[in-house]
Amino acid sequence: MDRTKIILDCDPGHDDAVAIMLAGKSPKIDLLGITVVAGNQTLDNTQRNALNVVQCLGLDVPVYAGCGQPMIREKMTAGDIHGKTGLDGPVFEPLTRKLEPEHGVNFIIRTLMESNDPITMVTTGPMTNLGMAIRMEPRIVEKIQRIVLMGGAYTNGNVTPAAEFNIIADADAAYVCFTSGRPITMVGLDVTRKALCYPSIVERMDKVGNKASKLFVDLMKHFCKSQKEVFGWEGGPLHDPITVAYLIDPTVLTTKPMHAEIDIRSTQSYGRTNCDYFGYQKKEPNADVAIDIDVEKFWNMIEEGLRLYS
Amino acid sequence: MDRTKIILDCDPGHDDAVAIMLAGKSPKIDLLGITVVAGNQTLDNTQRNALNVVQCLGLDVPVYAGCGQPMIREKMTAGDIHGKTGLDGPVFEPLTRKLEPEHGVNFIIRTLMESNDPITMVTTGPMTNLGMAIRMEPRIVEKIQRIVLMGGAYTNGNVTPAAEFNIIADADAAYVCFTSGRPITMVGLDVTRKALCYPSIVERMDKVGNKASKLFVDLMKHFCKSQKEVFGWEGGPLHDPITVAYLIDPTVLTTKPMHAEIDIRSTQSYGRTNCDYFGYQKKEPNADVAIDIDVEKFWNMIEEGLRLYS
Amino acid sequence: MDRTKIILDCDPGHDDAVAIMLAGKSPKIDLLGITVVAGNQTLDNTQRNALNVVQCLGLDVPVYAGCGQPMIREKMTAGDIHGKTGLDGPVFEPLTRKLEPEHGVNFIIRTLMESNDPITMVTTGPMTNLGMAIRMEPRIVEKIQRIVLMGGAYTNGNVTPAAEFNIIADADAAYVCFTSGRPITMVGLDVTRKALCYPSIVERMDKVGNKASKLFVDLMKHFCKSQKEVFGWEGGPLHDPITVAYLIDPTVLTTKPMHAEIDIRSTQSYGRTNCDYFGYQKKEPNADVAIDIDVEKFWNMIEEGLRLYS
Amino acid sequence: MDRTKIILDCDPGHDDAVAIMLAGKSPKIDLLGITVVAGNQTLDNTQRNALNVVQCLGLDVPVYAGCGQPMIREKMTAGDIHGKTGLDGPVFEPLTRKLEPEHGVNFIIRTLMESNDPITMVTTGPMTNLGMAIRMEPRIVEKIQRIVLMGGAYTNGNVTPAAEFNIIADADAAYVCFTSGRPITMVGLDVTRKALCYPSIVERMDKVGNKASKLFVDLMKHFCKSQKEVFGWEGGPLHDPITVAYLIDPTVLTTKPMHAEIDIRSTQSYGRTNCDYFGYQKKEPNADVAIDIDVEKFWNMIEEGLRLYS
Repeated sequence: MDRTKIILDCDPGHDDAVAIMLAGKSPKIDLLGITVVAGNQTLDNTQRNALNVVQCLGLDVPVYAGCGQPMIREKMTAGDIHGKTGLDGPVFEPLTRKLEPEHGVNFIIRTLMESNDPITMVTTGPMTNLGMAIRMEPRIVEKIQRIVLMGGAYTNGNVTPAAEFNIIADADAAYVCFTSGRPITMVGLDVTRKALCYPSIVERMDKVGNKASKLFVDLMKHFCKSQKEVFGWEGGPLHDPITVAYLIDPTVLTTKPMHAEIDIRSTQSYGRTNCDYFGYQKKEPNADVAIDIDVEKFWNMIEEGLRLYS
Repeated sequence: MDRTKIILDCDPGHDDAVAIMLAGKSPKIDLLGITVVAGNQTLDNTQRNALNVVQCLGLDVPVYAGCGQPMIREKMTAGDIHGKTGLDGPVFEPLTRKLEPEHGVNFIIRTLMESNDPITMVTTGPMTNLGMAIRMEPRIVEKIQRIVLMGGAYTNGNVTPAAEFNIIADADAAYVCFTSGRPITMVGLDVTRKALCYPSIVERMDKVGNKASKLFVDLMKHFCKSQKEVFGWEGGPLHDPITVAYLIDPTVLTTKPMHAEIDIRSTQSYGRTNCDYFGYQKKEPNADVAIDIDVEKFWNMIEEGLRLYS
Repeated sequence: MDRTKIILDCDPGHDDAVAIMLAGKSPKIDLLGITVVAGNQTLDNTQRNALNVVQCLGLDVPVYAGCGQPMIREKMTAGDIHGKTGLDGPVFEPLTRKLEPEHGVNFIIRTLMESNDPITMVTTGPMTNLGMAIRMEPRIVEKIQRIVLMGGAYTNGNVTPAAEFNIIADADAAYVCFTSGRPITMVGLDVTRKALCYPSIVERMDKVGNKASKLFVDLMKHFCKSQKEVFGWEGGPLHDPITVAYLIDPTVLTTKPMHAEIDIRSTQSYGRTNCDYFGYQKKEPNADVAIDIDVEKFWNMIEEGLRLYS
Repeated sequence: MDRTKIILDCDPGHDDAVAIMLAGKSPKIDLLGITVVAGNQTLDNTQRNALNVVQCLGLDVPVYAGCGQPMIREKMTAGDIHGKTGLDGPVFEPLTRKLEPEHGVNFIIRTLMESNDPITMVTTGPMTNLGMAIRMEPRIVEKIQRIVLMGGAYTNGNVTPAAEFNIIADADAAYVCFTSGRPITMVGLDVTRKALCYPSIVERMDKVGNKASKLFVDLMKHFCKSQKEVFGWEGGPLHDPITVAYLIDPTVLTTKPMHAEIDIRSTQSYGRTNCDYFGYQKKEPNADVAIDIDVEKFWNMIEEGLRLYS
């Protein structure tokens, strides 16, 4: 069976951790490496979190630190959702896993340049590392099979009314990726807000009863609590793993080709993903934008993913 | 019974025509005057259309021509939806009704300044006339009870992915109104897209069997046809009369107080109504934004409105 | 001799007052009326200042109050230069002159519409009144012979590095005027900064020894003092009267046709007059931009202007 | 004698070539390496041009290719000034010098990280390489002694009325550099336009009579011709070497500390260097902006620089 080669670029973050879990053992996915970026928390935190998750799950995948700052704009984090460490909740064993010495951006460039097969880039944080890599070595672009990102919204945002966190945190990098000419699958708030991790879901996953499910439960208990405090929602939306779920089974999402443009020249609407849902602007679509999700199938996939761990 | 004094500022336009019809005979509404603006079509067309509607319905309400251009930006119209005349469909009798000689902006200023009671401003086109009046005579602001507008969207637009027609056609005027300090009810695409005038609705109204229902039917047949051609929808959304319906019976809408800001300093997102649905920005709400509509009640109100005509 | 018919739109302001003086008795100028706008100070102050100047000089010219706020943006004033009243310095007799009852914008529209001859619009404050008039009644545009404004800079500004006061105070109005299609003469900081009113100039004008020179001296003593405090300059630049001097004798300025565009969609550079000095952009020139001034000739014209008063 | 360690980041380009010549043999300068960027021409052209200049002058300095595209915006070049190759004019020997294999951005990072001494970054093209390096490895910032750039203008630009070429070609990178917190010397058009290389200057340098002067003469003949065709100037402004001249003898320039901000959120004024010459905005200066040049001294330095070659 052909496995999809991916590099997972992330900023763990609770939902990023679940994305790593889902990708780590899937027979459909060949996880070549994890690159880390600042986003939900500072790079110091997100790289430690990534290592903790990989160690806790016993995954044999290299982890690279990438950029600690957006390409252009000043840094922002999402401390109120993910807590002080960026992964509040679980208590991890002392960390023995180490970062690879190579810079994440150089790893992305080298891996793509050396690969004979196209590679799918999955980003679940600000798109800084990929944007930097594309600008530093434009020849990688043709090696990218597809960019699958969690980010944006064609309806309304979650940081400003215009913009979603992963995009507003580095809209310039998103602009570079969206204008790269490679196929894009944008998994935005429009669908991720439907994947609400209610207490009943947490209970269901708890019953799996292995280290992965324990991690899931520890993560989600904190995540849902902070989502409730910030947004008033009973269950937190499990944004990031939907990207990986889509690569395992594309039928989990309904997508629609649209022209999607990132507003980087506004102050008030900076970071808006202007997706031409109705095709008013007669521009060539550059993105398959997720417009619906089969929530039941998604939770089944999460459960199956957890069960792959011993 | 206390009737709500309103000035209806519009750019007929099929749905504006229905708004005039609904306001014209309602025992809940005291329609002081109609001011016309360029929008769906040029001012030449929209003022003739307003006179035709008023004459056809036998309404004794003065009609004033206002501005033929947006406050700042260049002119745009919506010819593909409303046709060459802006009110394609019905065939009207030769026009004998005349415009009042006073400029619409001066009428708004004079009426508000001379009134002892506060007046509700209803706008169903670009907000140019009201914006101009507020800037020319700021003392009118305190005489405005509320601004009820059809315009904007907190999700996605219908001219660009960011913006809705009435706002993008003069976002600067909308900015003036939204920052005026007066209460605002924003009836945007988020709800008006649910008020779809399917053929079954047209049939139902046809049975009313008077001149108003005939006008409604003639208008909607064209409107639904062009909506289908442009957007692929079976029924066209009857945007504008929802403002008047709301003043007759506020329970037809569910609204939520939000901080709403108009982006006038972007090129790509010009005209976006950035509504802080979730209150992320901790800014004082300045608008009651419609988030749901009781569609059944709305069509009942339209039918009742038609029946008031002999 | 043919006199140039002008309407002088101003926000007195020390240099506006000198512009009124220069226009008031010139045999080359037919001053049809003065319209007042908020700018250097609030409308309450600028209209009183205009009346005081007209009364003090014994001029028989009607004064109209126009807009007290910019077309779109929030109000700003220049209190640090012109003082608390906007015309600190002179002590005026009790005011008996009265404002005309008509709104300044309506006066501009009516005068242009009723005139058989084209009229030159001179603006020495924010361009709000003219912008509003153009949008309220677009048919006036063809009646405008030329717009001669003090405002802008093709080098650097005096409120932000990008923008000059009269433009940034209502860049949207300036945009309306600069895109009106009528010929424009832009007298910007690039030349007005060269017309520095040193103490020696004040002494020279003092010797004229009439009521006009007394007013000039009282004004300039305050003006130069505040310019020195704010900018560190020995002599204050006498911006506004250069517009009128140019209409009396165009050879006082060297101008160059350029394409001039107002930036109204930036936050940081809002109000910049982007003048294509070198013609890089190959766009049709829409403005004659002043690039040099014959300073000696200018002061001679000021002295001659003062001597016309008894 | 203490030599200033510099990395010269450039896009040769005629005036870049003279900057290399001036830095290459100066006893005041320790030229650690040359990094090349796209700008005046594509990266393919600018890297070949840099190698040709280094080989022609017999300089033993490593040359690294950097970025071929701006950080965010689409690519632009200046073909009309520098010709098809980017260095039209001289005929070079067959090229034997080779690029170093390391990416220019990685060279900048490695050199700064490994250096015990602070290093001065000189940029005479778009600031892409330095901006990328700062974002990829923020720890280099404290190793930068000063950034000396040719770019920008506090008066008017040379690509748009708002912006100068090196900045507009990658304003986002300039933004990163100007907000890095390190001291900046900005050598903009305001002074470089005064260093006009008239035919008499070319004749004077011709008399030096060595390979360097021959290169200078061949370069300047083309450069002055195209400047005349594009701008109508008799002598072309020799922008780039002024940065190096300043490091050799700072008295060649008069500078003034200002707060300088790059406009990256405008469409019309994108790339403007808003320099607060008069200190209106009361912000902490972040740049020493050149406001005057001792032209005579500059040409003397160029002549001395040429004479250092055998």
